[in-house]
Amino acid sequence: MPGGFSVVERAPVVCAVQQEPVVVLVEPQLGENIGMAARAMANFGLRELRLVAPRDGAPNDSARAAAAGAAHVLDEARFFDDAKGAVADLTYVFAASARERGQMKRVLAPADAMLRARELIDGGNRVGVLFGRERSGLSNDEVALADALITFPVDERFPSLNLAQAVLLTGYEWRRALGAPLPFSGVMHSPLASRATLESFLTFLEEELDRRGFYTPDRKPSLTRNMRDIFYRRELREQDVRTLRGIINALIREDK
Amino acid sequence: MPGGFSVVERAPVVCAVQQEPVVVLVEPQLGENIGMAARAMANFGLRELRLVAPRDGAPNDSARAAAAGAAHVLDEARFFDDAKGAVADLTYVFAASARERGQMKRVLAPADAMLRARELIDGGNRVGVLFGRERSGLSNDEVALADALITFPVDERFPSLNLAQAVLLTGYEWRRALGAPLPFSGVMHSPLASRATLESFLTFLEEELDRRGFYTPDRKPSLTRNMRDIFYRRELREQDVRTLRGIINALIREDK
Repeated sequence: MPGGFSVVERAPVVCAVQQEPVVVLVEPQLGENIGMAARAMANFGLRELRLVAPRDGAPNDSARAAAAGAAHVLDEARFFDDAKGAVADLTYVFAASARERGQMKRVLAPADAMLRARELIDGGNRVGVLFGRERSGLSNDEVALADALITFPVDERFPSLNLAQAVLLTGYEWRRALGAPLPFSGVMHSPLASRATLESFLTFLEEELDRRGFYTPDRKPSLTRNMRDIFYRRELREQDVRTLRGIINALIREDK
Repeated sequence: MPGGFSVVERAPVVCAVQQEPVVVLVEPQLGENIGMAARAMANFGLRELRLVAPRDGAPNDSARAAAAGAAHVLDEARFFDDAKGAVADLTYVFAASARERGQMKRVLAPADAMLRARELIDGGNRVGVLFGRERSGLSNDEVALADALITFPVDERFPSLNLAQAVLLTGYEWRRALGAPLPFSGVMHSPLASRATLESFLTFLEEELDRRGFYTPDRKPSLTRNMRDIFYRRELREQDVRTLRGIINALIREDK
């Protein structure tokens, strides 16, 4: 094999329980791309990487450098001579493709594909996603091995995604398909202000404005309503109202 | 400004109609990252890039190299002294953040944020997304300028996305929010097979199997039903059935 690559794995006969889709890179040319793909996998909780005849053999220095903290994904990667061997133990295969292939595979957006992957994995299946060579993608024979294609909703004027980006987007959609939570949500250090808090503030504000001749009698009702409209739709927090009250207090203090 | 950067743009007074969210990179350190971000934008139809005090000034050779065919995004990029200036003309701002900020901003997943962005843009708003420095992200003062935060559903064991990846995922979700189509869909070169086609094939197959003693009388009804179950749920196409018929014909020919 080119690149001195020599490790061959046969598909295990024992069926391992899988939790995430397997990422299969077919003849990746650049170590750096393998590393970046490994990192993209780690970002979104994908763990199993399979490398089919990588041009430079076992992950090299540029792969490790690009993988940064995701070197464990590289360390645990399995090697295969060809795509057929890499998918032999899988029960459902997606193939990533930028273009139509003259076959009759169903074509899914990444979001739908990963929802389907989740269903399949929940049902005990072993799912994989094939990604092709940097320049030429997958061969038609490799695509033929798949149950379905994944393609990305790119702008047709600029459609080319690199290998690591395709893996990243797939991993991202896998996380979403799991309903994975965000790292943090809005921490509301203060609750929404009650109507009483808001009324008290508005009454205070209006008294100060009135004292300063802000209102003419005919305009007062509509300005009053307008003020309530403004302040009630702000989703103000108790703390916000306290701050605003302090601001008004400081303003009127200077005036005296 | 460090890096000899000297172009300052004031926010235009005239309100331009915007079609996509603006991408604002705050103090990006590496030209290569600016280039990759430009490319990620082009992949998903984002066009307006704003650069706040990029460390190396105007996009340099490594930016252009990394942008590949997306150099037009770099060429049209606008420069600002600070984030406040970059967002001055915008009416809704998202800030991308990996961590909680001690403020009370709402926090959205990229998918929800871009759906919201689309709503806002449809309503005539000018929307932007702030992305921070490679290592330190956005300052708390910069985050304060935003209406809401975006954060990515990364695996907490490996949470760090690079700048271009964050832009890529945001752009991808923008495309999805637009309901952008896939570049191609499953081209069905042959229609689904009619029941008559399938029955004709199955009858043919069963006659040949019967001739060869495949059935015992007691097993025939269940095998017959089983065969129909198998073939009717395959979603076979007319062309598929013709191929299978040809295969059976070849097999029985050799037998004679």
